[in-house]
Amino acid sequence: MRNIDERTITEAVTRSFEGCADPRLRTILSALARHLHDFAREVRLTEEEWMRGIRFLTETGQKCSEVRQEFILLSDVLGLSMLTIAMNHAKPPGATEATVFGPFYVPDAPECADGADIARGAPGEPLDVDVRVLSEEGRPVPHARVDVWQADDDGLYDVQVDALGQQRRARATLRADGDGRLRFRTIVPVAYPIPTDGPVGELLGASGRHPWRPAHIHFMIEAPGCQKLVTHLFLDGDRYLDSDAVFGVRSSLVVRLERPASGVPSLHHDFVLAREVAA
Amino acid sequence: MRNIDERTITEAVTRSFEGCADPRLRTILSALARHLHDFAREVRLTEEEWMRGIRFLTETGQKCSEVRQEFILLSDVLGLSMLTIAMNHAKPPGATEATVFGPFYVPDAPECADGADIARGAPGEPLDVDVRVLSEEGRPVPHARVDVWQADDDGLYDVQVDALGQQRRARATLRADGDGRLRFRTIVPVAYPIPTDGPVGELLGASGRHPWRPAHIHFMIEAPGCQKLVTHLFLDGDRYLDSDAVFGVRSSLVVRLERPASGVPSLHHDFVLAREVAA
Repeated sequence: MRNIDERTITEAVTRSFEGCADPRLRTILSALARHLHDFAREVRLTEEEWMRGIRFLTETGQKCSEVRQEFILLSDVLGLSMLTIAMNHAKPPGATEATVFGPFYVPDAPECADGADIARGAPGEPLDVDVRVLSEEGRPVPHARVDVWQADDDGLYDVQVDALGQQRRARATLRADGDGRLRFRTIVPVAYPIPTDGPVGELLGASGRHPWRPAHIHFMIEAPGCQKLVTHLFLDGDRYLDSDAVFGVRSSLVVRLERPASGVPSLHHDFVLAREVAA
Repeated sequence: MRNIDERTITEAVTRSFEGCADPRLRTILSALARHLHDFAREVRLTEEEWMRGIRFLTETGQKCSEVRQEFILLSDVLGLSMLTIAMNHAKPPGATEATVFGPFYVPDAPECADGADIARGAPGEPLDVDVRVLSEEGRPVPHARVDVWQADDDGLYDVQVDALGQQRRARATLRADGDGRLRFRTIVPVAYPIPTDGPVGELLGASGRHPWRPAHIHFMIEAPGCQKLVTHLFLDGDRYLDSDAVFGVRSSLVVRLERPASGVPSLHHDFVLAREVAA
């Protein structure tokens, strides 16, 4: 450790964690240092670039508040959030795939009855949703708890609209019936940009990336004996399906609306919950 | 990009930077995403660990202020700062090696004459320093500008001692004479801990690492035709030479004090400046 150079330093740092009493923390910190150094060596990071990185991370931390998490946004646009979901929520073949949770879930959504209009005045084109919750064997899962949330026609979630205060709309906690079926009315979701007024927005701008997410409705579905499912349904035809700013799209989650010649468009989908696995 | 999983996501993210107009930024962001994903896959990062990481980075950013840079401290303890220095300041054989700059340099140090007492009242054991500034060929470099700064006997730099206000001590801007020689009096440096009252201190504590840096004096030396040198001299025998919290030690920078039977200890060293290279 007295002969630090650009090659020996990595071993010096990983060795410094050898006294860590928590073996998992030791593994994580050693691997973090190793990959961080590999990155810096590969790109031959200059001192100016290092300082730019320090400033970027500082501004990202300072943009965070009670209602804003800029580091999660950074993780999202670098694909780390979706990678973490994909690793921790791999589903068996046939089960509905998971995607990112996102920052707009709130635990106090209104409890709505089967058939309710959960839009509750949120602006947008009406949409009738008719879904089923099934097991891996294709059998109905009765009485699953289904949380739904989405943006309105302006691309905003209720929690982003200051004027709404604590008012909740275009979100609900529902229950499927004894046959696993659930119907509700909401609005057709639209594409929207992630917040761009912070360092992550600057990063996207500087790197020629747009901030848009394709239109989607969030679902979180829970039932005894099944793995909790956190996912979205995306709308077929959305222009951002191939360039989601947070890399959340899976082709199995893209659905096509039925648009009758007259009347309200509708969305049908079967969710398949994976069996709970013993710890 | 509609089939994101834990393998395909890395290509999706690196491709998202293909439209970046700045080729260097594209290279850096693509490599960053690739190494970040490799890290997460290697350790099989859980969602809980991911959230712990988000919180750690947020707290690190929020600890930063006008007078505190917690992200630089994090870079220091992960060895990234020293790696960046090592890559960008590789010296030819025989030239004095560089080490970390540190956060305690200030541009308004007092200008002191050859032979001055630069301690200016800072508590500590007196030390006489007698150094030469040489070229790669071993010839004296006349009139080099030499900036010196160090901690006092309490392990504190003047800028850390609130009561001092703008008072500067144990730091100076000096000039070597026509023969490249410079003498001054200061104090014997002591080992000190890096700040531990923030997230980086918690990280060190949780991972079983101490926060100490071995005793050292900072030097920054500039002369026409030579590369600027930013380095330390460390004291032989210091207990932290093999475990510097920021990985700054190079064996060539460890010096032994001369301690006469009576009188003031002294430090002699020849600095060798690398030739300036054409850009």
